[in-house]
Amino acid sequence: MTGKVVCFGEVLLRLSAPGHELLLRQPRLDVHVGGAEANVAAALAAFGHRVAVAGTLPDNALGHAARGELRRLGIDADGLALAPGRMGLYFYTTGAGHRPSEVLYDRAASAFALAAPASYNWPALLAEARLLHLSGITPALGANTAQAALDAARAARAAGARVCFDGNFRAKLWAAWDGDPRAILRGLFEQADIAFADHRDIGLVLGQVFDDGDAQARFAAAAGAAFAAFPQLRRIACTVRAQASVDHHRLGALMAVRDGGVHVCAPIEMAGIVDRIGGGDAFAAGVLHGVLGGMDDAASLAFGQAAGVLKHYLPGDALTLGVAEVQALVDGERLDVRR
Amino acid sequence: MTGKVVCFGEVLLRLSAPGHELLLRQPRLDVHVGGAEANVAAALAAFGHRVAVAGTLPDNALGHAARGELRRLGIDADGLALAPGRMGLYFYTTGAGHRPSEVLYDRAASAFALAAPASYNWPALLAEARLLHLSGITPALGANTAQAALDAARAARAAGARVCFDGNFRAKLWAAWDGDPRAILRGLFEQADIAFADHRDIGLVLGQVFDDGDAQARFAAAAGAAFAAFPQLRRIACTVRAQASVDHHRLGALMAVRDGGVHVCAPIEMAGIVDRIGGGDAFAAGVLHGVLGGMDDAASLAFGQAAGVLKHYLPGDALTLGVAEVQALVDGERLDVRR
Amino acid sequence: MTGKVVCFGEVLLRLSAPGHELLLRQPRLDVHVGGAEANVAAALAAFGHRVAVAGTLPDNALGHAARGELRRLGIDADGLALAPGRMGLYFYTTGAGHRPSEVLYDRAASAFALAAPASYNWPALLAEARLLHLSGITPALGANTAQAALDAARAARAAGARVCFDGNFRAKLWAAWDGDPRAILRGLFEQADIAFADHRDIGLVLGQVFDDGDAQARFAAAAGAAFAAFPQLRRIACTVRAQASVDHHRLGALMAVRDGGVHVCAPIEMAGIVDRIGGGDAFAAGVLHGVLGGMDDAASLAFGQAAGVLKHYLPGDALTLGVAEVQALVDGERLDVRR
Amino acid sequence: MTGKVVCFGEVLLRLSAPGHELLLRQPRLDVHVGGAEANVAAALAAFGHRVAVAGTLPDNALGHAARGELRRLGIDADGLALAPGRMGLYFYTTGAGHRPSEVLYDRAASAFALAAPASYNWPALLAEARLLHLSGITPALGANTAQAALDAARAARAAGARVCFDGNFRAKLWAAWDGDPRAILRGLFEQADIAFADHRDIGLVLGQVFDDGDAQARFAAAAGAAFAAFPQLRRIACTVRAQASVDHHRLGALMAVRDGGVHVCAPIEMAGIVDRIGGGDAFAAGVLHGVLGGMDDAASLAFGQAAGVLKHYLPGDALTLGVAEVQALVDGERLDVRR
Amino acid sequence: MTGKVVCFGEVLLRLSAPGHELLLRQPRLDVHVGGAEANVAAALAAFGHRVAVAGTLPDNALGHAARGELRRLGIDADGLALAPGRMGLYFYTTGAGHRPSEVLYDRAASAFALAAPASYNWPALLAEARLLHLSGITPALGANTAQAALDAARAARAAGARVCFDGNFRAKLWAAWDGDPRAILRGLFEQADIAFADHRDIGLVLGQVFDDGDAQARFAAAAGAAFAAFPQLRRIACTVRAQASVDHHRLGALMAVRDGGVHVCAPIEMAGIVDRIGGGDAFAAGVLHGVLGGMDDAASLAFGQAAGVLKHYLPGDALTLGVAEVQALVDGERLDVRR
Amino acid sequence: MTGKVVCFGEVLLRLSAPGHELLLRQPRLDVHVGGAEANVAAALAAFGHRVAVAGTLPDNALGHAARGELRRLGIDADGLALAPGRMGLYFYTTGAGHRPSEVLYDRAASAFALAAPASYNWPALLAEARLLHLSGITPALGANTAQAALDAARAARAAGARVCFDGNFRAKLWAAWDGDPRAILRGLFEQADIAFADHRDIGLVLGQVFDDGDAQARFAAAAGAAFAAFPQLRRIACTVRAQASVDHHRLGALMAVRDGGVHVCAPIEMAGIVDRIGGGDAFAAGVLHGVLGGMDDAASLAFGQAAGVLKHYLPGDALTLGVAEVQALVDGERLDVRR
Repeated sequence: MTGKVVCFGEVLLRLSAPGHELLLRQPRLDVHVGGAEANVAAALAAFGHRVAVAGTLPDNALGHAARGELRRLGIDADGLALAPGRMGLYFYTTGAGHRPSEVLYDRAASAFALAAPASYNWPALLAEARLLHLSGITPALGANTAQAALDAARAARAAGARVCFDGNFRAKLWAAWDGDPRAILRGLFEQADIAFADHRDIGLVLGQVFDDGDAQARFAAAAGAAFAAFPQLRRIACTVRAQASVDHHRLGALMAVRDGGVHVCAPIEMAGIVDRIGGGDAFAAGVLHGVLGGMDDAASLAFGQAAGVLKHYLPGDALTLGVAEVQALVDGERLDVRR
Repeated sequence: MTGKVVCFGEVLLRLSAPGHELLLRQPRLDVHVGGAEANVAAALAAFGHRVAVAGTLPDNALGHAARGELRRLGIDADGLALAPGRMGLYFYTTGAGHRPSEVLYDRAASAFALAAPASYNWPALLAEARLLHLSGITPALGANTAQAALDAARAARAAGARVCFDGNFRAKLWAAWDGDPRAILRGLFEQADIAFADHRDIGLVLGQVFDDGDAQARFAAAAGAAFAAFPQLRRIACTVRAQASVDHHRLGALMAVRDGGVHVCAPIEMAGIVDRIGGGDAFAAGVLHGVLGGMDDAASLAFGQAAGVLKHYLPGDALTLGVAEVQALVDGERLDVRR
Repeated sequence: MTGKVVCFGEVLLRLSAPGHELLLRQPRLDVHVGGAEANVAAALAAFGHRVAVAGTLPDNALGHAARGELRRLGIDADGLALAPGRMGLYFYTTGAGHRPSEVLYDRAASAFALAAPASYNWPALLAEARLLHLSGITPALGANTAQAALDAARAARAAGARVCFDGNFRAKLWAAWDGDPRAILRGLFEQADIAFADHRDIGLVLGQVFDDGDAQARFAAAAGAAFAAFPQLRRIACTVRAQASVDHHRLGALMAVRDGGVHVCAPIEMAGIVDRIGGGDAFAAGVLHGVLGGMDDAASLAFGQAAGVLKHYLPGDALTLGVAEVQALVDGERLDVRR
Repeated sequence: MTGKVVCFGEVLLRLSAPGHELLLRQPRLDVHVGGAEANVAAALAAFGHRVAVAGTLPDNALGHAARGELRRLGIDADGLALAPGRMGLYFYTTGAGHRPSEVLYDRAASAFALAAPASYNWPALLAEARLLHLSGITPALGANTAQAALDAARAARAAGARVCFDGNFRAKLWAAWDGDPRAILRGLFEQADIAFADHRDIGLVLGQVFDDGDAQARFAAAAGAAFAAFPQLRRIACTVRAQASVDHHRLGALMAVRDGGVHVCAPIEMAGIVDRIGGGDAFAAGVLHGVLGGMDDAASLAFGQAAGVLKHYLPGDALTLGVAEVQALVDGERLDVRR
Repeated sequence: MTGKVVCFGEVLLRLSAPGHELLLRQPRLDVHVGGAEANVAAALAAFGHRVAVAGTLPDNALGHAARGELRRLGIDADGLALAPGRMGLYFYTTGAGHRPSEVLYDRAASAFALAAPASYNWPALLAEARLLHLSGITPALGANTAQAALDAARAARAAGARVCFDGNFRAKLWAAWDGDPRAILRGLFEQADIAFADHRDIGLVLGQVFDDGDAQARFAAAAGAAFAAFPQLRRIACTVRAQASVDHHRLGALMAVRDGGVHVCAPIEMAGIVDRIGGGDAFAAGVLHGVLGGMDDAASLAFGQAAGVLKHYLPGDALTLGVAEVQALVDGERLDVRR
Repeated sequence: MTGKVVCFGEVLLRLSAPGHELLLRQPRLDVHVGGAEANVAAALAAFGHRVAVAGTLPDNALGHAARGELRRLGIDADGLALAPGRMGLYFYTTGAGHRPSEVLYDRAASAFALAAPASYNWPALLAEARLLHLSGITPALGANTAQAALDAARAARAAGARVCFDGNFRAKLWAAWDGDPRAILRGLFEQADIAFADHRDIGLVLGQVFDDGDAQARFAAAAGAAFAAFPQLRRIACTVRAQASVDHHRLGALMAVRDGGVHVCAPIEMAGIVDRIGGGDAFAAGVLHGVLGGMDDAASLAFGQAAGVLKHYLPGDALTLGVAEVQALVDGERLDVRR
């Protein structure tokens, strides 16, 4: 496929307690490389796209290892800057049944958070790019990253690349500094061709509340308002998640297309979830795969839903299955051992 | 909270096959520290209570390690005697689906079982105690421990502390010596302010059968008889467990209060159980937390049920989650990742 | 029990990714010894039968280790030849939910596949045998093994032993050489007293299609045709498997008896499957245990179904539980911890 | 080779802390099957001998697993009785440098220790035996095992088999009951054709002290006295061990032959020891291999020394390398990777 | 023993690559709890002293776990404050041969580093204290901790407790802020009764250079100058370390006593080092054990040297062996397995 | 650095027993990616060179994973063809002390061995190449790879790139087909500018014997003859290895330069070796780093020796340390913990 996808965001290490243990009950942590945008990059690379990650890693053994892991997944990591500072970490406890999983962030003052916006050479980083992917986590980290995200989005549009923005609103991160999420996120929505956002995310940005009717109705109303507010925006998609227990969810999906109505994927039952982290990122990557590859919108949404579902059954932050394996779920292939 | 809870019983090592393996199919055993009373102690400590464990451990590396583990959990272990002898062990195989889990006891002739009743200085051990917790496992281990349990209960009442007795009837243990369970357990029920027991446990002690009606009716009848027989007894509680499979249970709860009727908690569905051991102990600790903390009886029972449920989703013998995490289940908080 | 069971087939090593990981995401492979016929042997040994495995292993550390593992299970492995060559391997990825498990065979040109038919001394290998067990995998591996399987079956009948043949048709294996599966498998069906085969297996061998009616009707029709075509054949059995997800199946069972109609076991729900590999082999072993031990046909089938179900809850390729544990499932014993 | 070797003794489980950790610092124990006589059996089986182990194991999952492990090693375990009781255990901490390794026995009241001497049918157990191997650990365990060991030795001689006795004096075990080690061990020495013992062991049995001169002189004097006292005794061998540190030893070897003087093997330097347990048992097995196979005495001793040395570089209690690998050390083969 | 020892400093988590791997070559980190002062506390607790740790931990799962680990070791952790912030971490790679081990600090802006000096209630924390132990790492972390260390030392002297100060100069830590190490460390030396420091540490503080003669002469000269400069100082001790390779060192020890000359322990050879971290802390604890327990100075130094040596053979940051095990090395006990 | 290094050879998986275990004593294999040429590529990439690997991998999960691992190390793997077939494997047992390590090859009929010589597009694969690296293992695998190696070497010279050839003679591999090693290796020597070979390798190719004098004299004589026979050859280097035990070697190094004499590096003592595999490949990479970077010959040899030594202290097949870490050993930096 021609043209590469550039994902800009923080690459993190997940340090998790083994199995379903609480942290440090065993003297060991399992390590995964993650980060919302890196997860999207990994899935798109597994789907056969040319993908690069832009950002900043600490110039130490942890940063080097994270960069190597992205390369292992077939991602172009040459645009990742190495700078003094610390690695962004998060500690993770895998819940079960009625005990929720927990994230303990330890990412403050990371090399990424401290990198000056001017340290990124966007024309060079975006050369040959057909799409820039960003998420709302990056601007939530502080003034540096909020500015860098906006710079990146503007540079992408200037270079003729599409912009995809995944809202990913996390109140706890925004609370750590004095940035105004509504204004900053609005600035990013203004650049986006594709947005991943539900009615709450859109409501936050538009200063509106969309709570009439069922999930589909709320989303349709919010999407309509977003299309009105952001003229360049063409598609908005989100998942619809319901929890029967910590490891048994149902995952539906919605996509609104400008002048094209709302596509709906009925929920898929997910019992015995293996690793819920990155489900939304895999969904986004699946939808992007469809959109970039010229699939029709309904097919793109279904591919995204299947990608999202499959991520729940793979350990680690990113989906690394190929197109055929995702398509098999869309197509309803049998579930017995493949020999 | 003022006044400490003293738990008297045997601290055991659980040696379990990894994952769902049979014993010794892999050349490795996973180790947990357990024992019904220590489990109650651990949960109460996690709930913020001052807790001490009384008993006897072997004066060797295993006994020292078990004592250290109790301390790690915030339990006062200074009252645990160290004596010659062996550590009580049990080997454990975690079942799944239609294959039951199995306990293989190797606790005969342990330092605890052999400790002379006179070796315990109850006035000292019970100083500042507001409650003594005992279980029916201790008297089942032999004449020494049967006597020690009775001594402890009497000393507690003499010192003005309440006594809690968890029936925990295990026929296999009683079969190993010539003690009369009915008489011995009756002696302990006579001291108890709170008992954990179902209609079968009560029936055994009273020499009656309570099998008319459904679970609630049988329990109500048995509780009524128990209140009649044991004038100091104020509360009796039990769980109501149904198994759909080895790792899918339903857990309800009942509590009879003297002159207060029977409180009922509707069953909670528990699919994908992680570790069923200690579920009853966590229930008991949860109820005790409510009772000691002045919660009303219905709330205490609900807290106990939630504690019992959560234990099924945590590896190891003891629940080590805090009050907030248990209360969140009572309150029906959402089950997605806590970030 | 008098008379031994001889199982002839390839002993394989399973190299599997840990937990639910993809291959080589962690730098480690878990190892199990397997192979359809060895699995049947292991289960029969666990049920208390005298069992021997015949075949060929490479004369190197891997072959020696596989032989040792069979011995550990109580199988007589003295008849396994050691010869130059390589060990048959398969790499395995354990799926979950909507992500299927995958087998990657690496068994071509193994010592077993290359062993000359004349290298087996069947009269010696079958001494004291009451039954020879074979599967359709062996003839699928090439001309050598196809001939050896036929030799073995004929020698067994000549020696007065019964022959059991498990169809186990695997198109991918047959595709690797120019053997005619229909003719070769027919040759083996002609020797069999007991066959494990469903309506598709029988249809393949007879060149017919049995697709009228439900599973039971199709099986009855196919079995009738097989009894007509193969006069020595007395029993045909198969499982009926339905998948709700990769780790949630339903397993029913059918057995047709010459002049005895079709016995049916209602499906057993299997949620939270631990290891699906070898489920069919455990079923076959269970049925054979019943037949060899003089149980009536319905009881044999139920024992086989229970054995098959239990294998899904035990890691590894073979069921190694005893008769009492299988019978407990048939009898519907309770599913709580056995203490 | 014709005629089997029967080893009589307790089969134990070693539960050891991983790596160089102290016990229970990590929640895991590594498991090995051991026991002095089983170790000799395992090595002889690896050297190609027909070997059986006699003794008693508990009829539970642990006993079954230990039996399976012996079978895996090619040992005939059909003569091992299964009886009620517990498994003999020992906990192990692997030292390093200046921190000694430690054994914590938990073998009291095991099924083996409690087995009645009359429970062994020696004529059956010793059928086809060319040699019975015993150690001084067995009589140290109590009156039952002391009697059984003597019964076995007498039955072996009555059946025309040779008797090998490895002194293995452990004061701590003898201290646990009122047996007289001198009298009991003397009774066993009286039956032995081959003894493994140093000048202290011999001195203990004979009530003499042999401390004049260097190690070789003391051994020669003691051996001379032993040959005088025990007319049937033909060979006495021992290792000479010096410790530079916990994991750096030097191992020499001595063998006295009646009317044949003392053979001496110069010490072999052992730096970086992996697992010291079972070194003496491997030495004994190596010497027995030479003696049973008709090697001359010097060659037998050198083979024993090499077997003993190699055990130090293999994890677990038993040496499981073949004759060629031991002989390669005797022959001084190169130490680079074998490809 | 009467009176407790209070250790004030940062409790850290060590996250280390397994075995001799580089960081993140395997997706796993091994975790130990460390920190120079906590290591001293752990060793003193293992030697039987009453020990408390003062400091600040983050009020999250990591801080709670670290506190629990100290409690497991028998340390009084009730004086450890819990505060918002992050856990101090360090990543560790264990070298071998010619490849050095590496520490990657990630401790900036930890809850300990940010804790206000006024947050410590020294009179309460030092109640019943006979000795306060501090190290030069604490003041190196920033102005807060430099002030807190000085406050603690002054409060200790005011309360009549002795002060022990371990120089532990780390240029890299001091370089991260504008504190003047010479002045700050001098302030702490002025409070110390016992100091652990070599001629370079003393030279740094006094602004002198002591490089004439051999190690002992340099140390004697520096100690003399220190005694002159710091009138309350009574003892100065240090190790003398030489490296043959990364895992083969030699460790000697020196102690100067005011008006008492210099005691010297000849170097002990340490081949095959298991874990070098904490060697100096164990030495300090060993010397303190001697001094606090009234051993003579030569014996205290020898005990300290043995403690330091033994730490190199135990995984983790702290020595947790008892007095008998350390004394055994001083006494030259044999190095074979203790059974 | 300008111009890339292309390494052509088979990428293998090493499947090794954990720790010092024998194969399959634990049900687990540790996995590393290796292969002589890939090891050189990995080290050069770690030294900062642009490096590509050419060859053929199976188009399955194993081949994909191996390719990902090379990418993780910063190697350009886009030139690696994916083709049907199997992955080359080798099983590995890590020896210790007097027990040698062992390689069990399972690489016959791999996708690499079966790839047609014409399948490689050398002009494309060698674009921008400044050096092609080959080893004698590739031609030993069969006629296909022998031809492909020769094609590659000729194409490299035609494209103006230098050729480096590492003899790596393995008699066992050559024995598996009828190729004439002398003629084939001679063909490759004829293309080489740099050769890694000792006096035996050169003697084999030239049909001569060089055994007069010590190691240096033999090497000098052989190198002189090689320079005479191969006019394009400019440098020949080799290590000189002596074994004190399996994990204690001494490693010296020699390099002969046309018209420049023989450079000698004195042996470095290597006690406590961690992983000896790939030591020669790291040496070759180190020498190439020096030669490509314009270091003088003595410095290049010293860098190569240090690289070779350091590989012995790093788990896995390849050295992945940077230039600074290798240079530190050349420079004799201190060996204590780097903080």
